[in-house]
Amino acid sequence: MPVSAEHDDTEQHLLALHQDLETGKLAEVKQLLHALTPAEIADLLEALKPKDRLVIWRMLPADVAGEVLVELNEEARSGLIKAIESTDSEDLVEAAGTLDPDDLADIVEDLPEKIRQQVVQALSHHDRSRLEKVLAYPEDTAGNLMHTDTITVRPDVTLDVVLRYLRLRGEMPDLTDSLYVVDKDDKLIGILPLSILLTADPDKTVRELMVTDIEAIPANLPASDVALLFEHHDWVSAPVVDEEGRLLGRITIDDVVDVIRDEAEHNIMSHAGLSEEVDMFAPVKISAQRRAVWLGVNLITAFLAAWVIGLYEETIQKEVALAVLMPIVASMGGIAGTQTLTLVIRGLALKQIGVTNVNTLLMKELAVAFLNGVLWAVVVGIIATVWFQAIHIGLLIATAMIINLLCAALAGVTIPLLLQKMGIDPALAGGVLLTTVTDVVGFMAFLGLATWWLF
Amino acid sequence: MPVSAEHDDTEQHLLALHQDLETGKLAEVKQLLHALTPAEIADLLEALKPKDRLVIWRMLPADVAGEVLVELNEEARSGLIKAIESTDSEDLVEAAGTLDPDDLADIVEDLPEKIRQQVVQALSHHDRSRLEKVLAYPEDTAGNLMHTDTITVRPDVTLDVVLRYLRLRGEMPDLTDSLYVVDKDDKLIGILPLSILLTADPDKTVRELMVTDIEAIPANLPASDVALLFEHHDWVSAPVVDEEGRLLGRITIDDVVDVIRDEAEHNIMSHAGLSEEVDMFAPVKISAQRRAVWLGVNLITAFLAAWVIGLYEETIQKEVALAVLMPIVASMGGIAGTQTLTLVIRGLALKQIGVTNVNTLLMKELAVAFLNGVLWAVVVGIIATVWFQAIHIGLLIATAMIINLLCAALAGVTIPLLLQKMGIDPALAGGVLLTTVTDVVGFMAFLGLATWWLF
Repeated sequence: MPVSAEHDDTEQHLLALHQDLETGKLAEVKQLLHALTPAEIADLLEALKPKDRLVIWRMLPADVAGEVLVELNEEARSGLIKAIESTDSEDLVEAAGTLDPDDLADIVEDLPEKIRQQVVQALSHHDRSRLEKVLAYPEDTAGNLMHTDTITVRPDVTLDVVLRYLRLRGEMPDLTDSLYVVDKDDKLIGILPLSILLTADPDKTVRELMVTDIEAIPANLPASDVALLFEHHDWVSAPVVDEEGRLLGRITIDDVVDVIRDEAEHNIMSHAGLSEEVDMFAPVKISAQRRAVWLGVNLITAFLAAWVIGLYEETIQKEVALAVLMPIVASMGGIAGTQTLTLVIRGLALKQIGVTNVNTLLMKELAVAFLNGVLWAVVVGIIATVWFQAIHIGLLIATAMIINLLCAALAGVTIPLLLQKMGIDPALAGGVLLTTVTDVVGFMAFLGLATWWLF
Repeated sequence: MPVSAEHDDTEQHLLALHQDLETGKLAEVKQLLHALTPAEIADLLEALKPKDRLVIWRMLPADVAGEVLVELNEEARSGLIKAIESTDSEDLVEAAGTLDPDDLADIVEDLPEKIRQQVVQALSHHDRSRLEKVLAYPEDTAGNLMHTDTITVRPDVTLDVVLRYLRLRGEMPDLTDSLYVVDKDDKLIGILPLSILLTADPDKTVRELMVTDIEAIPANLPASDVALLFEHHDWVSAPVVDEEGRLLGRITIDDVVDVIRDEAEHNIMSHAGLSEEVDMFAPVKISAQRRAVWLGVNLITAFLAAWVIGLYEETIQKEVALAVLMPIVASMGGIAGTQTLTLVIRGLALKQIGVTNVNTLLMKELAVAFLNGVLWAVVVGIIATVWFQAIHIGLLIATAMIINLLCAALAGVTIPLLLQKMGIDPALAGGVLLTTVTDVVGFMAFLGLATWWLF
């Protein structure tokens, strides 16, 4: 049995792949690809230049090629699909055709209209209705996340009957850890975990042994709430029901892991104004366009700060030390504010912040800001006094820093809460707004106090 | 069957809890807690003030109380343990005593020495050796993550024998989706998925049906690699083996989900110099201390930038417009650099960046930086020219911006790579170093060029 020490290492696969491609050893490339899962191949493709991706993808068998499309991130996928379409779109139809309807649902909207029609028409009636069932729910809801491949049993049969039925059936969908018990109207009335099926007396009926105090997932529940449910309950799979409690399908942990990973990446990437679906090797023009918007938004902040400084041009001319020191006040406010903001955004994502504790949190953050404000104000004040041989400069920067750190704490707590109320993603907009506040307040406090005290 | 629309909502639980606590309805509080999983209760506790946590924790039955300790984040846990210890440490011994050895391993090092001894001594010989087995591996490795509750079978028995054995055994560990097939030396030779056990002919032997081309996890594999393996293979559980291939235990997806969540939080929190284990409601003094370090590190950056500005005091005195505009150059460089840095850190985490593609990536990022540099340089140049009625100011800031954006791209690619080589976490230190570069280069390019051109 292979022990997977260095098996799962995209970096090493990349190295091997490059060497084989350069020396033209295509048989070795195929062998390497054969040993990898579709998810691993997708990781590998994302690390290649777009034109190399097409070459590798064409070497895959149709069923693997289809799954690889599902596993790629959106931007890389749509780039690859365009490249395939412009050369030989038959491969695309074939690869998509091998997918089961639930996976197909994930990529069908990225397919060009003509290809989508071909693929959908080739589906059996049963598969087409499964596809439509999943597509009926918006992205990022339980309904869109679910698979429809459930095994259902009736409550009045014995376990022995169920066991014989399973053997007749011959195979089980991946990640099946429970059978679902439904009544004649397809309403979910319980689940029968495989562990009970395997350990209980076979003469007992399903009704006697099924678990009924379980939570079914409503099809319209947001994907992020589904992820929290899975984490809180350590589920492997869970049934999805409609408003009348009828069984629609099930969600499995592998898809939930993707949701968790995507959410986490969303938070990290949003911070830099990027999408979690961004492609590291997207064409320069596309990357430049996407990032330009974020730079433009931040330019507004920067000009706002510049405008504030401009109000005090005369003051700066009289005392140039102010220009030297002013970025310190703004930057320390930004850093302290980001700490509070980061904590609050996490708390909101975990739904740990609400009307009952927001005041406690604000008071705590203000207290922390005050302590750190005083500490670093003293340090900065002393350094500034020594540097410019002027105690009034030291006093000035110390006061401005305390003011800015308190404002930063206030902004760090309130901005994400306000954004969430307005339906704007705090992970995306929170950082820019916070920096705007800490820059403006920082420069205004420092230069404003200077104008008032010194002249 | 309850449909869990608003069930799993810490915010609503908080509200209910507060109302019940205020009106003294303790029976209602107990009822609410009874309906929640330990993970949900932990989420709830983290959203409460430390003194309320103790009150709630004491209301829990010992077994739930123990699991809640496991689920809490480290900082909240150690705070709660201190609070319990200082009032009645017997509860702590009792709660920890209910945990199975694998869960106990997660918290045993947070227990005060005296209590740890009591708990460990109360374990059976078998449980103590299980605990020691897990503790023998460092944190964040497969060995420390594993549970030892595997069900093993021999290859030469028939499925029918296995089925009867399972019925005799009567129960299965949570998240068991496979039985492990071992030889007489405990070496892992295959796995028998429950789905095969349930669907295959019971007269066949385990050897005929077991899956042998699986990857076993070496006990010393880092937890982050374990997570990638699970994601790439869609596993529910996987066997852990020692260097000789002997079965040690298994890792289950619920623990892997925690690893993924922790890693993601680590990246987000590190960005603000916080730990993923930070407690939102930690005492002010503790929070202030932890955050002070990060502010101090950033203060060095800020003073470095101030020192650069100080070099050009005379230039600024002659042309105050420079002081007004200089933060724009630095800030745009910081934003653009952060975009590159964020992409590269993600690529490194997924092992998608290596010697084969780092040059391609650098060229691409420089090209993107150049395009956006030119675009925004023109915009900023025109605004600055109009604002200060001086074309030389416009030309100056435009040139400086292009220089700084190119340096930002270079730093964004190289800094995380260098940090990783030096064994320093890029998510923690990358942002500070990048800002240092973009501040220093931004101020130096702008003010340096001004000194050279204008005077």
